[in-house]
Amino acid sequence: MRRFDTVAILGVGLIGGSIGLALRRRKLASQVIGIGRRPESLRVALEMGAITSSTLVSAEGVAAADLVIVCTPVGRIVDDVRHVAAHCRPQALITDVGSTKGRIVADLNDSLPNGVRFIGSHPLAGSERSGPAAAEADLLVDRVVVVTPVAATRPDDLEDLCGFWLNLGARVVQMAADEHDRALAATSHVPHLVAAALAAATPDEVLGLTAGGWGDCTRIAAGDPELWRQIFVGNREPLLASLRQFEECLSVFRAAIERRDDDALVELLTAAKHRRDKVT
Amino acid sequence: MRRFDTVAILGVGLIGGSIGLALRRRKLASQVIGIGRRPESLRVALEMGAITSSTLVSAEGVAAADLVIVCTPVGRIVDDVRHVAAHCRPQALITDVGSTKGRIVADLNDSLPNGVRFIGSHPLAGSERSGPAAAEADLLVDRVVVVTPVAATRPDDLEDLCGFWLNLGARVVQMAADEHDRALAATSHVPHLVAAALAAATPDEVLGLTAGGWGDCTRIAAGDPELWRQIFVGNREPLLASLRQFEECLSVFRAAIERRDDDALVELLTAAKHRRDKVT
Repeated sequence: MRRFDTVAILGVGLIGGSIGLALRRRKLASQVIGIGRRPESLRVALEMGAITSSTLVSAEGVAAADLVIVCTPVGRIVDDVRHVAAHCRPQALITDVGSTKGRIVADLNDSLPNGVRFIGSHPLAGSERSGPAAAEADLLVDRVVVVTPVAATRPDDLEDLCGFWLNLGARVVQMAADEHDRALAATSHVPHLVAAALAAATPDEVLGLTAGGWGDCTRIAAGDPELWRQIFVGNREPLLASLRQFEECLSVFRAAIERRDDDALVELLTAAKHRRDKVT
Repeated sequence: MRRFDTVAILGVGLIGGSIGLALRRRKLASQVIGIGRRPESLRVALEMGAITSSTLVSAEGVAAADLVIVCTPVGRIVDDVRHVAAHCRPQALITDVGSTKGRIVADLNDSLPNGVRFIGSHPLAGSERSGPAAAEADLLVDRVVVVTPVAATRPDDLEDLCGFWLNLGARVVQMAADEHDRALAATSHVPHLVAAALAAATPDEVLGLTAGGWGDCTRIAAGDPELWRQIFVGNREPLLASLRQFEECLSVFRAAIERRDDDALVELLTAAKHRRDKVT
C-alpha cells in the first residue's frame, strides 16, 4: 500500500485541520502542506501543528504532494480539483471531503491531466463549528468515511485511499456516489433542514423557555448558511424526496394527535424510539 | 419565608430523585420522603441519598410533609394531587413537575381538603433518560422552573414555592398556565414530535450513515413513549397550532429549494442560525 508521505490540504478548516493534526500526531506524513485563502487560518493551523507549511498559491502547494485533499465548500470542489490536478505530480491522487458526491464524482469522471486520479470521499464528521481552531486530532476516530469509487477507479488507488482513512482511525464504507447522496439526504440533509425550520419557527419571546431538547434538536442550525445552501442545492432531488418522507411521517403523527388516537400515538412514538435506540 | 423541612416526593425518577439529592446536599430539608410504586426505584433513591425514607403508601408518606412534590406522569397528576391532599397536614403546600400545566391547574383550582394548597411548577430539565439512577444533584442549577399561580394563589405560598426552587439553584419564571403551555408547545413538544418523526422517517438501512447531526436532532426521540403521549394529549391544541407553524416554516424552506432560489435559501438559513445563536 502506498504511503502518502507528502499531503496537501486545500482548505484548512474543521475537517482539513483535523486531518492534518491526525496525520502529524500519528506520524503518517512528514509533510502536510496547508493551502488556503486566508493567511490567518493558515497561521492558526501552523501554530496548532495541523500543517508543516502553508501557501496561498495552490499550484505551489500541490506540486510535491502524493495526495491532495480538497476540503473546500462543496460548490467549489469540482473547479478546485480540476485546477490543482493541472499542477500535481504525475500519478498523484486527489480526494475531497464534500458532503454531496453525485455531481462531483460525475463531473470528475473524465480523465484529469498528468495521469492524476480522483476518488471522492466524505468523512461523516461535520459539526456546527468551523475553522481550524475547532480541529481535533481524533475527529475521525470511529467515524465513518464514505468512499465513492467509479467503474474507472483503479483498485490500487482505492485501496490506498481506504488505507489512508483507516490509518486516521476512521471506518471506511464504499458505495456509489448516488447511493451516498440518497442516504445522506435522510441522515444529514433533512435533519439540517428540519433543525433550521425548528429554530426559525420558535418565536423569539419564548427562547428563554427552551431546554436541552430544543438545544439538541436545533444545534446544527448554527452551521454555516452558505455551506448548507451548497449542500442542499447539490443534492436537490434526493433531499426533496427524503423531505417528503419526513413530512409524511410527521403527518401520520399529527393525524393521530388530531383524532385523539392514543394507541396509534404510543405505537408511533415507540417505533421512533426503537429506531433511535439502534444508534448509540 | 417558610422552610420546608419535611418534603415528600411522589415519584422518585429523574426529576424527583434530582430534587431529593439537591435538598440533601444543600441541607435544605432534614426529611425527604420518597413515595413510589416500585420498591426497586425507592431502594436506588435511598442508596443514592436522594431520599431519607421511603414508602409505597402515599397517605403515609405525605402525612408529615410541609411540601409535597408530585413527580408522576402528567396524565396522573390531578388524581395524585387530590389523593395526597386528603392525607396532608393542614396548610401543607403541594406542587408538581408536569410538562403541561393548563388542564392540571384548572382542574385543581377549586379548594383541596384541610386547607391544603396547590401551585403548579415545571422544571425545564427533562431528558431522554429516566429513573432515579439518572438523577443529579445539580440537575436544576441554572435551569428554568416555570411556576404557574392562579388568581386564588396566596402571595406567601407563591413566595415560599419560588424560594424553594431558587434554593435548588434554579431560575424561576412565573406565568399563567395557558401561556406556559403555548410556549412549551413551541420549545419542547414540537421539537419532540419532530425528533420522533425524523427518527421514524430514517430508513433502517442507512442508520449506519448517521453522524452527530442526526444524533443530536433525534436524541429526545429516545424518551418514554407513554410519557410523551400524555404530554401531547394534555397539550393538544397549542401543540397542533405550533406544529402548523413549524410545517409552514419547513414549507418555505422547501419552496426555496424547489425553485432553486439561492438568495432566499441563504436568507432562511441565516435567520435560523441567528435564532439558534441566541441560545447558548
